[in-house]
Amino acid sequence: MGYLLLLLAPAGSVAALVFAACLAFGVLRQGEGNEQMRKIALAVRQGADAYLKRQYTGVAIFFGVMFVILMALAVCGYLTFFVPFAFLTGGFFSGLSGFVGMKIATAANSRTAEAARKSLNSGLRIAFSSGAVMGLTVVGLGLLHICLWFYLLDWFYAGDPDKIQKITSTVLTFGMGASSLALFARVGGGIFTKAADVGADLVGKIEAGIPEDDPRNPAVIADNVGDNVGDVAGMGADLFESYIGSIVSTASLAVAAGLGINGAAAPMIMAAAGILASVLGTFFVRTGEQAGQQVLLRALRRGVYISACIFAVVSFFLLSMVLGWDRIGIYFSVLSGLLAGILIGYFTEYFTSDFYRPTQRLSETAVTGPATVVIGGLSLGMLSTAVPVIIVSAAVLASYYFAGGAHNFNLGLYGIGISAVGMLSTLGITLATDAYGPVADNAGGIAEMAQLGPEVRKRTDALDALGNTTAATGKGFAIGSAALTALALIAAFRDRILVLDPSYQLNLSLMNPSVLTGLFIGGMLPFLFASLAMESVGRAAQKIVLEVRRQFKEIAGLMEGTAQPDYTRCVDICTRAAQKEMVAPALVAILAPIVTGILLGVHGVAGLLVGSTVTGFVLAIMMANSGGAWDNAKKYIESGNYGGKGSESHKAAVVGDTIGDPFKDTSGPSLNILIKLLSMVAIVFTAFIMSFSIIK
Amino acid sequence: MGYLLLLLAPAGSVAALVFAACLAFGVLRQGEGNEQMRKIALAVRQGADAYLKRQYTGVAIFFGVMFVILMALAVCGYLTFFVPFAFLTGGFFSGLSGFVGMKIATAANSRTAEAARKSLNSGLRIAFSSGAVMGLTVVGLGLLHICLWFYLLDWFYAGDPDKIQKITSTVLTFGMGASSLALFARVGGGIFTKAADVGADLVGKIEAGIPEDDPRNPAVIADNVGDNVGDVAGMGADLFESYIGSIVSTASLAVAAGLGINGAAAPMIMAAAGILASVLGTFFVRTGEQAGQQVLLRALRRGVYISACIFAVVSFFLLSMVLGWDRIGIYFSVLSGLLAGILIGYFTEYFTSDFYRPTQRLSETAVTGPATVVIGGLSLGMLSTAVPVIIVSAAVLASYYFAGGAHNFNLGLYGIGISAVGMLSTLGITLATDAYGPVADNAGGIAEMAQLGPEVRKRTDALDALGNTTAATGKGFAIGSAALTALALIAAFRDRILVLDPSYQLNLSLMNPSVLTGLFIGGMLPFLFASLAMESVGRAAQKIVLEVRRQFKEIAGLMEGTAQPDYTRCVDICTRAAQKEMVAPALVAILAPIVTGILLGVHGVAGLLVGSTVTGFVLAIMMANSGGAWDNAKKYIESGNYGGKGSESHKAAVVGDTIGDPFKDTSGPSLNILIKLLSMVAIVFTAFIMSFSIIK
Repeated sequence: MGYLLLLLAPAGSVAALVFAACLAFGVLRQGEGNEQMRKIALAVRQGADAYLKRQYTGVAIFFGVMFVILMALAVCGYLTFFVPFAFLTGGFFSGLSGFVGMKIATAANSRTAEAARKSLNSGLRIAFSSGAVMGLTVVGLGLLHICLWFYLLDWFYAGDPDKIQKITSTVLTFGMGASSLALFARVGGGIFTKAADVGADLVGKIEAGIPEDDPRNPAVIADNVGDNVGDVAGMGADLFESYIGSIVSTASLAVAAGLGINGAAAPMIMAAAGILASVLGTFFVRTGEQAGQQVLLRALRRGVYISACIFAVVSFFLLSMVLGWDRIGIYFSVLSGLLAGILIGYFTEYFTSDFYRPTQRLSETAVTGPATVVIGGLSLGMLSTAVPVIIVSAAVLASYYFAGGAHNFNLGLYGIGISAVGMLSTLGITLATDAYGPVADNAGGIAEMAQLGPEVRKRTDALDALGNTTAATGKGFAIGSAALTALALIAAFRDRILVLDPSYQLNLSLMNPSVLTGLFIGGMLPFLFASLAMESVGRAAQKIVLEVRRQFKEIAGLMEGTAQPDYTRCVDICTRAAQKEMVAPALVAILAPIVTGILLGVHGVAGLLVGSTVTGFVLAIMMANSGGAWDNAKKYIESGNYGGKGSESHKAAVVGDTIGDPFKDTSGPSLNILIKLLSMVAIVFTAFIMSFSIIK
Repeated sequence: MGYLLLLLAPAGSVAALVFAACLAFGVLRQGEGNEQMRKIALAVRQGADAYLKRQYTGVAIFFGVMFVILMALAVCGYLTFFVPFAFLTGGFFSGLSGFVGMKIATAANSRTAEAARKSLNSGLRIAFSSGAVMGLTVVGLGLLHICLWFYLLDWFYAGDPDKIQKITSTVLTFGMGASSLALFARVGGGIFTKAADVGADLVGKIEAGIPEDDPRNPAVIADNVGDNVGDVAGMGADLFESYIGSIVSTASLAVAAGLGINGAAAPMIMAAAGILASVLGTFFVRTGEQAGQQVLLRALRRGVYISACIFAVVSFFLLSMVLGWDRIGIYFSVLSGLLAGILIGYFTEYFTSDFYRPTQRLSETAVTGPATVVIGGLSLGMLSTAVPVIIVSAAVLASYYFAGGAHNFNLGLYGIGISAVGMLSTLGITLATDAYGPVADNAGGIAEMAQLGPEVRKRTDALDALGNTTAATGKGFAIGSAALTALALIAAFRDRILVLDPSYQLNLSLMNPSVLTGLFIGGMLPFLFASLAMESVGRAAQKIVLEVRRQFKEIAGLMEGTAQPDYTRCVDICTRAAQKEMVAPALVAILAPIVTGILLGVHGVAGLLVGSTVTGFVLAIMMANSGGAWDNAKKYIESGNYGGKGSESHKAAVVGDTIGDPFKDTSGPSLNILIKLLSMVAIVFTAFIMSFSIIK
């Protein structure tokens, strides 16, 4: 049954890609607006291309080096020869989905502004459709990548009695390519976007006194590019990694759980069902005219919730067919994950939206100055960690016991893995609502710069404001799914140790000193990583400041609007800086499990992975929610509360918002990558670590 | 041999108390200075008395309730009947040492100022002597408390074949009284001191425009009281708890390690050796005239290092006598802890003192405004966590393997426990250098308010500046020792489960879902706790603001200096607020392990304890070091760098400093209490949890 239903997976991935292509053509068919709009959109597009070009150059070098290292490991017998190639294909597919996402997002921004001239619904549809292209491309290519390798290995290992075991444990090691690309896209994108943002503001708004989004500012395009780089490509790569990571780790846990091919096929079939549900859900996203923020939000939510319901129904029947009625508890594991994802999104909104008390109270602390608003925001972020932690904990326990963990430990771990698959199943539409944000943001900028009428700008503002809310909930979802995926990967890491050496005396007790010190070091790593990322933003922003000052001085007629600034240069500086600043965090993420493994063995590594997942999860939520709340507290004051725009409390809130920028857009999200990449590196290097560790 | 040498413990504790009494009389024999100085000192003293009076009222109610609960547990057979009484005595001894410390500190402040009129060395000696009184009282009373109960139980269980086992496992549960008092002293003290500080500044400096430390400000005395409340009584209670916690947990681990009475006696004998070394070390703390900051620091360091060397030599001979030559590896476990404590202090200074690059660079970020200095400080704090984590990890591993953990797991755990004892052995003098700080701070304030000559104020300023450095290193030491003590307590918790039910199927694997969710919840608790503490400071400061405003308005002649403000009222408000705000954090710390235990069993609790220790340790270091670095970055600017006092960069640095206040003096230190109290509660409630847990 598993083999037959597994055909749904390639079918689903192709369907996702075809539907994404249809949506993309639908978007591209729309008008781009007047000349001014086309000019701005072109500049953003060129900037994004410049970014992609340089990033892929850096990525190519990194992948080249890693390929050689993996080949060396394969030659020495620590890996199969498939891994170096799968490393390349994983990176390629992840990079391709980022490329497609950026292309459509930078094509849709001016078209959204143009469509908003017609009606609010038209604008929403264009922006959302381009988000859906991104979402469906990510899930389509992710699933396709897994299917291609699965069928290749299925053919290669044909006739081998341990075929399924060999396939799944090989496919498991394939996540590292996507993880590595995610590191570049998410961490690099995070550094890029905030360096451009802060740099543009420091010189443009403060020194030169020109407004935000002014086309004379050489960094303004870099700023707009940054939105796409961080929130489209970065977020996409992050979730691409979670998506395939959760699927392959669950598949690899199926064998030990005694579920065989059916268990290995189940996560892929779930993914296919999720794609179907996501595609259907997109049709329900529409709104009337005169829609407020809450109505627009409900329009997006409707799509997500309907997709979740469809998935819940379809997956019930599919799972009962694949795994049989006696294993139907696993279905509830899937549901636990699905529900946890929705709940985390909801509570993230509660803590960061100015519709609710926490952020409103944060605005009030701005009245007594920047110090109190910073303390208030940090405090809010710390407090807000409690609910998501409890939700994920409940999901872990529920999925473990529903799957039958009380009687069979390995079934319980499989349950945890498949709950991550459940959470990510409707990623096609969840990511669509998220990638929608920067498109709407850019559309607002274009409407502003091209001086479209007040009615249009009111519409683009409404669409943009909605994007801020979905960005916050999207971050919560990304963190939650990263944590659950990391747990699935850690379980798979444990499984891999026992596959490599079934007689290994594995002692993962908290009281094993290697595990304990691993936990401490792992618990510290997110702090170190977040610190490095924040420092990077500071240094990169400084470079932008110097460049913008230089252009203001050297390009004659720039301030009068008769000469064009050199946008590409700023984009290039941001990209270079992002690439360069990536080196230290990348080395930390890749070397930490290897060095810990050599010193403390696989026990130390297991501690490291769990420690970093726990602390990384909590710290990432805190940073994302503090940042989101500061942002919206500032907006709440700007909308006329506590003195309004220009007041002392507004200035204090701006300080909070500036601190929140690297929090929510650089350091916080980069922790998602850290916790997954650590696990992926550990999985790929397991055999190496087991051979060379000092403490066994 | 153990029994004979154990006599050193009561002898040592009595010696510490006698020597402390001699030092105290030496301090009290000094002159209190002129009338103005006496008047100010009296006000601080009255404030401190008012604080103690109200705090002990609150504590009495809490202890009454807890006594009833513990009695109920004892009646139901979940505890021995000794525990409720030991709970009271532990609280009493901890409270008594806080009482003595506050009394001597508030007596020494004016005497230090007066002595500084004679020479720098005289001032240093008085301030340091009063610190030494506190330090030696803490270790003397701590060790005395353990000895009293040990000999009482020794008599009670006389003839019982499992005597040692019964004594140690009973004494183990005695730490909760000290833990609970530490909660009030450290968290309450932290809220008190920052509420007074922030409240006094907001109205006095900003609204009324009067200088800091101006006697017309009704909150100024509360501010001075706060220094004593937070850094003397709070720090003392914190380390009192670590001190006895490390000793009793190590003693309880001795039986499972097969070391019997000798192993149980060893930590107490080590403590006695440490007292001897501390007393001798105090004689080496002296300086000449014309001493700069570095010379003064070296004077204090000399005392600490000489104590450590003496301890290292003496403990070698004592341990070889108690445990025999074949167990001499345990001596190196002790040394690992001792060395780790010294190294953590050193690196804390590196990251927070403006003699070194990190804080100097932080000052530079103030040039571009408050946002960059806040980001820089948070980033610095996060980065600074790496070194202490690696030091503690190395100490854990080293002490485990030195003690023989490779062959006998329980010996390894004993090694971890005794390394905490080693770190805390010279607490008598370490705490002296720390409690010295607020005395010097108060002396500086008194010299300022009493308008003593510039030569004297230069001396008190030098003494005060030194106090800032020792405060930062003292915090690092307190956190490091809290983490190591918590680990010892967790090991003892595991041991206690097996003592209560030797057939219990203990599975502390990371992959046990109860352990895993416990880790997540535990990892989140420090964030929740820190958030609650920060919110509390904000609310309490608000009350002080209202009261100071009221007094300015209602008391005629106050601003002209003809009428006296009502200092006691502000002190009382701070105390009340601190007590009231304690309720939520106290409930979190006490209920978290019990509720987790009921839901997830002892496995969940073990995960909770380890998770909170890991995250709490890292977060506490980050908060303490960020706060310390902001404080000193401000001072560095004030000393004439980057624009100096009154410049824009100074204003930005003040924002950082204000944020750092609750970080370093409230939330950060309160995490030390959290991680130990969670363990103590878990230990006391082990039998209860094992009976009533849903998931076993």
